[in-house]
Amino acid sequence: MRYSQLFGKTKRQDPKDEVSKNAKLLMRAGFVDKLMAGSYSILPLGFRVLKKIEQIVREEMNATGAQEILMPLVHPKSIWNETGRWETAREVMYQFKKDDKEYALSFTHEEILLDLVRKHIQTYHEFPAKLYHFSTKFRNELRAKSGLLRGREFLMKDLYSVHTSSEDLDKYYFEVAESYRKVFKRVDLDTKFVEAAGGVFTEGHTHEFQVLCETGEDTVYWCNACDFAENKEITKIKAGDKCPKCKKGKIIESKSIEVGNIFRFGTVYSEKMNVLFADKNGERKPAYLGSYGIGLTRLMGTLVEVYNDDKGIIWPKAVSPYEVHLVHIEDPNTESWAKEVYEKLTKAGVEVLWDDRADVTAGEKFADCDLIGIPIRLVVSKKVGKGRIEFKKRDQAKLETISFDKVFGKIA
Amino acid sequence: MRYSQLFGKTKRQDPKDEVSKNAKLLMRAGFVDKLMAGSYSILPLGFRVLKKIEQIVREEMNATGAQEILMPLVHPKSIWNETGRWETAREVMYQFKKDDKEYALSFTHEEILLDLVRKHIQTYHEFPAKLYHFSTKFRNELRAKSGLLRGREFLMKDLYSVHTSSEDLDKYYFEVAESYRKVFKRVDLDTKFVEAAGGVFTEGHTHEFQVLCETGEDTVYWCNACDFAENKEITKIKAGDKCPKCKKGKIIESKSIEVGNIFRFGTVYSEKMNVLFADKNGERKPAYLGSYGIGLTRLMGTLVEVYNDDKGIIWPKAVSPYEVHLVHIEDPNTESWAKEVYEKLTKAGVEVLWDDRADVTAGEKFADCDLIGIPIRLVVSKKVGKGRIEFKKRDQAKLETISFDKVFGKIA
Repeated sequence: MRYSQLFGKTKRQDPKDEVSKNAKLLMRAGFVDKLMAGSYSILPLGFRVLKKIEQIVREEMNATGAQEILMPLVHPKSIWNETGRWETAREVMYQFKKDDKEYALSFTHEEILLDLVRKHIQTYHEFPAKLYHFSTKFRNELRAKSGLLRGREFLMKDLYSVHTSSEDLDKYYFEVAESYRKVFKRVDLDTKFVEAAGGVFTEGHTHEFQVLCETGEDTVYWCNACDFAENKEITKIKAGDKCPKCKKGKIIESKSIEVGNIFRFGTVYSEKMNVLFADKNGERKPAYLGSYGIGLTRLMGTLVEVYNDDKGIIWPKAVSPYEVHLVHIEDPNTESWAKEVYEKLTKAGVEVLWDDRADVTAGEKFADCDLIGIPIRLVVSKKVGKGRIEFKKRDQAKLETISFDKVFGKIA
Repeated sequence: MRYSQLFGKTKRQDPKDEVSKNAKLLMRAGFVDKLMAGSYSILPLGFRVLKKIEQIVREEMNATGAQEILMPLVHPKSIWNETGRWETAREVMYQFKKDDKEYALSFTHEEILLDLVRKHIQTYHEFPAKLYHFSTKFRNELRAKSGLLRGREFLMKDLYSVHTSSEDLDKYYFEVAESYRKVFKRVDLDTKFVEAAGGVFTEGHTHEFQVLCETGEDTVYWCNACDFAENKEITKIKAGDKCPKCKKGKIIESKSIEVGNIFRFGTVYSEKMNVLFADKNGERKPAYLGSYGIGLTRLMGTLVEVYNDDKGIIWPKAVSPYEVHLVHIEDPNTESWAKEVYEKLTKAGVEVLWDDRADVTAGEKFADCDLIGIPIRLVVSKKVGKGRIEFKKRDQAKLETISFDKVFGKIA
């Protein structure tokens, strides 16, 4: 892609009405645009990041045997009345009336999913169902000051599983936990697997995947010797305590960002909604529900909170909008060489963002590279010389001048 | 995919509350589920069809130089007030209030797109902008009896282009028309390029892509000798007239389904919203807007209306959920052979739906094949014999018994 043609250029100034680092950097670098508090348009650069995250999540969901579907975003009141959440979740839901009928916007999809399941499978051998979709969620968040971390409208992958026993649900629940670990590892995020409260979702405990980060809204207590970790909301321990699990390590308190959350609802909603299955004896019993979410836009925001410096974003390779940022320092003698590098790399399947702008100084172009945060910068200029390329990693200061053939080995 | 594990099985009975062929067949065959009038969940089979349609559309949009983004679905009233559509489109829009603020659900995205454009580009050399997204539209359709053809919530690809002159808009408008022709050709739909009225969108004429189909809601008049075609809404001619364009052909009246629609808004909305660009002399002028839509779910419904017989759906190859429907007629001697065929094909990259169900008769399995509509059926059975496969196309009666090696040549 020629940067001159890309929609969504860098801006020198921070947006006025944002306080979070992720929103400031993503807006300045041209990844997103703000429509209103808690709601963003995803611009071409941001869209490429999101699609890469989506594909990683999709692959790991499919690997658990889950099937991809798509459920509607506007729901009839009647279905939310079945679980009582029309009333209990009223604050967070957008509810509205049209032509005397009442509707809600999707803030989650348990009810819709359970309705699907009860209509389509009724006998034990048809279970479990493992269904997921990528779709929009709407939540009336009171504070919408964390940029992409807490949107009023945002993208989520939500997976639901329905089982004939608590044991089968447990087994799949920990399988999904493992697949979440793989997702986060693939996007270079270290996560803690944290016990937490269920909020409006469930009265029982749940597990969250938390990324330690000073700018996070959550607080977790974790052991420096074992895998013990609890959310502040439920824990009774404090920083400096001895770990209640391994009895060896020390408890540390950290701010953190939740990037994934998994729930075991058991039969609570199935009982209310009559989601039953016939067992081997023909007896009808309520099914066991699990629910598993990863916010895609939130994950993008988290990556920016974790991977940045004073110059801009530093994308992990797996989700960078492009693999390579090619800069040509304006000069008639090396113009054809810059074009050749761009075309050769593109033809070889390398994703290249080429800053081909005229009338922009080298300094501005380098600053834009740092702000946008693609892991590898290649420079073609008079100084570097025809046939040669200057190579630099976003997270390192070292500059190297190499021949074109060496580029592939460097970016692999 | 093993059919025994697929979520969304065939049903013997038509749904009670559907009159359209597409909804009946798609629901019976397990492609979609109905949440409420005009709103459907897309089940795994339907999701695969939609993803294939989406990818074809994406490729053709990218080929025009358009860039993919994603715009929000909930919009502030203020932005719709700028064009006056908060009032003029009130009937079709879902509008609602939350905490004293008013919002609308996306029934289209011209206003949001123009807001993006005015914030990001202001000078002639930054134009044109060509931006598209795949997203959900919400329209309060009074009649929602056409299944996937007219949803209250549906998936759309909408592309917008913003130019510095009417000529540049015209040029791109017809480029998009050409790319739409390619999309429809790739999914095996013959379309007429029809002049039509703009509805709530524009007072000027627009163009629609119409598929001739007896069950369509639209009526078009077209020439049997040239490319003249007009929508009934605007035409003054009638069936049997001499063509006003070529003066040779005869005008024919047909029912039809609109699968694509393109609009030239010109500067109407740009003037209202102050979407201006500085020209070469620094003078600020309103920009020219074009808008181009293809309903993805509607396209899926149209394909079913056009390609079916009394037994079920007949998918065009390019969008079939799987390439091959493999049926094993229960028999212990050929069970391992069926599995081998499935695994070999899958390994070779062929998309196979394998009906591996026990306790289902051959007749039922064949009926399900015809209902689901995958273009190629392969049968492994005692009668066909180990090492051999029975080959049949969905749209032909001819049966052939072939060796495994011959399969690849047949399905390519």
